[in-house]
Amino acid sequence: MNAPTEPRDWGTRAQRRSQRQARVAIALGSALRGKLVSTDQAVALLHAVLEPFDRVCLEGNNQKQADFLARALVQLDPQCVHDLHMVQSVLALPEHLEVFELGIASKLDFSFSGPQAGRLAQLVGAGRLQIGAIHTYLELFARYFVDLTPQVSLIAAHSADAQGNLYTGPNTEDTPAIVEATAFSGGIVIAQVNELVDQVPRIDVPAGWVDYVIVAPKPNTIEPLFTRDPAQISEIQVLMAMMAIKGIYAEYGVQRLNHGIGFDTAAIELLLPTYAESLGLKGKICQHWALNPHPALIPAIEAGWVQSVHSFGSELGMEDYIRARSDVFFTGADGSLRSNRAFCQAAGHYACDLFIGSTLQMDLQGNSSTATLGRIAGFGGAPNMGADARGRRHASEAWLKAGREARAGRTGAAGTPRGQKLVVQMVETFREHMQPAFVETLDAWQLAEQAGMALPPIMIYGDDVTHVLTEEGIANLLLCRTDEEREQAIRGVAGYTALGLGRDRRMVENLRDRGVIRRAVDLGIDPRDATRNLLAARSMRDLVRISGGLYQPPKRFRNW
Amino acid sequence: MNAPTEPRDWGTRAQRRSQRQARVAIALGSALRGKLVSTDQAVALLHAVLEPFDRVCLEGNNQKQADFLARALVQLDPQCVHDLHMVQSVLALPEHLEVFELGIASKLDFSFSGPQAGRLAQLVGAGRLQIGAIHTYLELFARYFVDLTPQVSLIAAHSADAQGNLYTGPNTEDTPAIVEATAFSGGIVIAQVNELVDQVPRIDVPAGWVDYVIVAPKPNTIEPLFTRDPAQISEIQVLMAMMAIKGIYAEYGVQRLNHGIGFDTAAIELLLPTYAESLGLKGKICQHWALNPHPALIPAIEAGWVQSVHSFGSELGMEDYIRARSDVFFTGADGSLRSNRAFCQAAGHYACDLFIGSTLQMDLQGNSSTATLGRIAGFGGAPNMGADARGRRHASEAWLKAGREARAGRTGAAGTPRGQKLVVQMVETFREHMQPAFVETLDAWQLAEQAGMALPPIMIYGDDVTHVLTEEGIANLLLCRTDEEREQAIRGVAGYTALGLGRDRRMVENLRDRGVIRRAVDLGIDPRDATRNLLAARSMRDLVRISGGLYQPPKRFRNW
Repeated sequence: MNAPTEPRDWGTRAQRRSQRQARVAIALGSALRGKLVSTDQAVALLHAVLEPFDRVCLEGNNQKQADFLARALVQLDPQCVHDLHMVQSVLALPEHLEVFELGIASKLDFSFSGPQAGRLAQLVGAGRLQIGAIHTYLELFARYFVDLTPQVSLIAAHSADAQGNLYTGPNTEDTPAIVEATAFSGGIVIAQVNELVDQVPRIDVPAGWVDYVIVAPKPNTIEPLFTRDPAQISEIQVLMAMMAIKGIYAEYGVQRLNHGIGFDTAAIELLLPTYAESLGLKGKICQHWALNPHPALIPAIEAGWVQSVHSFGSELGMEDYIRARSDVFFTGADGSLRSNRAFCQAAGHYACDLFIGSTLQMDLQGNSSTATLGRIAGFGGAPNMGADARGRRHASEAWLKAGREARAGRTGAAGTPRGQKLVVQMVETFREHMQPAFVETLDAWQLAEQAGMALPPIMIYGDDVTHVLTEEGIANLLLCRTDEEREQAIRGVAGYTALGLGRDRRMVENLRDRGVIRRAVDLGIDPRDATRNLLAARSMRDLVRISGGLYQPPKRFRNW
Repeated sequence: MNAPTEPRDWGTRAQRRSQRQARVAIALGSALRGKLVSTDQAVALLHAVLEPFDRVCLEGNNQKQADFLARALVQLDPQCVHDLHMVQSVLALPEHLEVFELGIASKLDFSFSGPQAGRLAQLVGAGRLQIGAIHTYLELFARYFVDLTPQVSLIAAHSADAQGNLYTGPNTEDTPAIVEATAFSGGIVIAQVNELVDQVPRIDVPAGWVDYVIVAPKPNTIEPLFTRDPAQISEIQVLMAMMAIKGIYAEYGVQRLNHGIGFDTAAIELLLPTYAESLGLKGKICQHWALNPHPALIPAIEAGWVQSVHSFGSELGMEDYIRARSDVFFTGADGSLRSNRAFCQAAGHYACDLFIGSTLQMDLQGNSSTATLGRIAGFGGAPNMGADARGRRHASEAWLKAGREARAGRTGAAGTPRGQKLVVQMVETFREHMQPAFVETLDAWQLAEQAGMALPPIMIYGDDVTHVLTEEGIANLLLCRTDEEREQAIRGVAGYTALGLGRDRRMVENLRDRGVIRRAVDLGIDPRDATRNLLAARSMRDLVRISGGLYQPPKRFRNW
C-alpha cells in the first residue's frame, strides 16, 4: 500500500522541455545564436516549440500586446499544431480569435475581451471555441500556479540584451506572473522585443527565466486605454462626480482607492483640486491610489493631493511626467514606471477602501454586468476589486464605518463586527441610444444559456455593492435590511427608466428620510453648480499645460 | 486653481536615497566594494542607512529569517535610530521584539507572531509598541504598494554574485514582494547572504533591485515548520481525517486545495493512498495543491495522487525529493524549488476550492480565533485562504455545489446564483489541558479591549466557515438558514463541552435528519476502523523509505 501502485516517470516536464529545445536547435540551425532567434524565423520557432494541446499564454495584456508573436501563431500549420489551450488575460487583437478560426487553438481561459467581445460570442456560438472560464485578472494568474500553468508563453518586452535579460519598462503589466509560472514549471518562454541593446536600462525579467528572444520588425502594440479627453465630460458627469466626492468619499474619509476606466471617474479626478478643495477635503481623502497613470489625475497630483500611485500598467504619453514625479509613482532606477498587474490587483483588493466602477446594466438585486447579448466581454479587474475582501483584517475609518452600517441590528454570524469594502456603481439611468441602465433581468442570464455557462456572467454581485450612484442620487445599500428595501432603494435612483417609474413613492420617501437614498439637494449640492467650469482641466491642452509640458498625449488626442 | 497651490520638490525620494548612499560610502570607506559590504560592518551599514521613523521591512518570513541583519539592528544606538515603523510578515526571533524594547522601533504592522505572541502582548501592554494592524500575508504585501511601502528592506538570500544578483533558492518566500515594493519606490534593499559565489545557480532577484550585499557569518535560520512526525498522529485524528475525506472531499469532489500546518491535515495526507484509495477516490480528489512541501504528502505523491504543488516556502530535508519530483513541484533550472508566498496566497485564495485549518477556539456563530489571552498571535495566511473569494468567477463542481447549498431557497441579492469556497474548521472538542474548543465568547474580544484594537482578532469569520469538523461529526453550516440552526449545528458537534451539552436534542436530531449534521456512522464510517494502521506512513522512517531515501529529515526528527 505504501509503495507506488505503478512505476512512474518523474521527469516528463524536463524531457518535454529538452525535446522542444532540441527541435528548435535543429529547425533553426544558425538562425539561433544563444537565445536569439532571427526575426524571419518566428514561425519556424513556434512550429518547433509547440505541440498539440499545449497550454499557451500569448501575452495579451490590457495594454501591451505580443502582436508579432500573435501574427506568427496564426501562420502555423493546423495539421501540426492544433487544439492549443489559450490561457491569456486579454483578447484584444484579431489574431487572438483567428487562432481559433484556423483550428490552431480550441479552448480558452481568459479575463477580458472588450474589443473582440462580439466575435468571441460568434465563435462560441459556432462551436469553434470552448470557453473554460472567464476570470478576473488575479484569479487567472492564481490558476497559472495551480491548474492552468502555461507550457509555452509568448511574451512582449521593450528590449533585451544578448544574454536574454528583459526590460519591460513602464508596461510590465502581466509579464512577471506569466514568466514565473512558465519558467519554474519546465515551460518555454519566448519573448518578442522591440530592440536588442548592449545593456538593458534595468532588468525586469532575468535571462535565466527566458528561453528565446526574437526582435520584432516593429514595436509592440500599446493602447492608451485610460486617456479621457476632459472636453468630452458632460455636466451630468460633473454632477455625479460632485455627489461621489461629497456623499461618499468625504462621508467615509476614503484615503485609498481604485478608479476604473471612463469619463465618470475622470470627472472625479478633475474635481479634486477644485470642488473637493473648496470643501476642505485636501489631505482627508484620495491620498493613495491603485490606478494606471491617468492623465486626468495630473491636476490633483500637481495640487499636492496625491501621495502614491501604484499601477497595473502604464499610459502612453505619461512617460516624462512619471519620471519627473517619482515621489508619487513606482519607478525603477532608470526613472521609468514599474507597473505590475498582479501586485496592483492585490493592492486593489486588500489595500483599498473603495472601488468605483461603471456598468451597462443593473438589476433590482444590484447585480451588474457589462455582458450584453451577442457579446462575451469578460470581467477584467472589476470582480477582484469590486468584491468585499473578506480576508482583510486591517482597519481604516472608511472600512469600519461601512461595516458598521452593514451590520447594525443584525444578529448571529452576520452581526459579528467586521469592516466592509465600499463598492460603488456609478451609472447614468439611461446609456447611449436611450437604453435603460436598470433592467428587470440582466442580459447575462440569456448569454449564460446561449454559451452554456454554469452561472450568468455577473461582473459585480449585488451582495457586494454598497452604493449605487446615478444623476438622481445615491442609494446606500449598506443600510437596507430586506430585499424589498434594496429593490426600492435602487428604483429610487433609477429616474425615468421603467423600473424607476415603478417605485413605491411612499417607501422611497421613507428611505430618503432614513438617508438610504440621498439626492443632490440632500447633500447640499445645487445641480446648477455642476458645470464644466468646475473641472481642473477642460481639454487635453489644459492637461499638458498643467503638467508643465511633461505630459505628451498620443496624436489622436491632440486637437490643437 | 489649476496651478500648484505651493511649490513642491518632486524628487525627495531620490534625494533621500542618494543621501543614504552617500552616508554609507563615507561610513564604510574601503569596507564597501561595489555593493559588497564587509561582514564586520553590518552595524555601521545600518547606522548609515537608517533614519528615525523609517518604515523598515526586516525579512521575517514564516520560515527563512534575516537573522544576521536582525542582530545588527538591535545593536544600533537608539539616540540615532529610533521610532522605526516595522512592516514585516512574521515576528519569529527574539530580536524582532528587542528592537521595540530598546526603543529603536516603536510601531509594528505584521501578520504572524506565533513564537513571540506572549512577549508581543506584554510589550503592547507596557506601551512600548504600537500595533498598526494584524494582516493576512497577501494583505500586508498589498499594503507594501499602497500605504506601507518600506523605505529600507533587510532581506535574506542564499547566495549572491559580485554584481549583487541574488539566489534565494527553495526559500524564496516573501522576498520578491518585499524587494519589488522597496526597490521601485526609491528605497534601499540590503541583503544578507550565506555565501558569495562566482555565479548564482539561478537569479531570483536581479542585482539592479539590490543596493547592498553582506555575507553573514553563518547561514540564515530556517525552521522546518511543516514537518509532522506521523508517529504522533492519534487515532482520533485518523477518524477525523476519514470524515474529512469521505464527508467533504469526496462529497464535493475537491480537486484543488490548501492544507494548513498540523497533525490534523497530515493525517488526511497520509490517508490518501490507503483509505481514500479504497474508496476509489484516486483522480477524483486532491490533484492540485497550494501547499508547502509537507513530508506527509510523500506517500500520496509516490502513489500518483498529486499532479501539482505550488508552495509558499520550502521545507528542510525535502530538497533532494523535490529535485527528483520536478513534475509535481515548481522548480528552477537548477532543480531546486521556487516558492513564492504572494503567488501561492493568490492561488490559495482564487484557485483553490477548499481551505481546511485548525483553530483553538470557536464560538456559537462559528467565528474562530487562535488568539488567546495574553498572546497576540496574528493570522498568517488563514484569513486570505479561509474566506470566500467573492471576486472569483470560474466554476468548479465543488464550488458550485457549495454555492447551491448556501443559496437554496434564498431570495434577492443573497439568492443570486454564485459559487462558494469550502472553508473547513477541523478541531477536537477539547484541546490540551482539557480546554474546550467551543466557547461562549472568544478570548479575542477581551484581547481586543486590552490592546485597543478596533475589532476582535478573529481569524476565520463564522460567515465564511462552511463546515465544522470534530470527532463528533461534521456540521454543514451552508445548509443552516437561521442563527438558531447554525448555533445548534455547532453545538451538535461540540461533544461533551459545556456548549455541546447545552444543545437542544430535538433540534440537533432534526438537523441530523436533514444532513446538516453528519456523524461518522451517518457517513458509513465505523470508528473502530480508525486506527493508525491506516496511515500510509507511521513514522519518519517510513516517510524516508517511501521517498526512496530522497527525503532527509532534520536531525531533531531522526529517532532511529
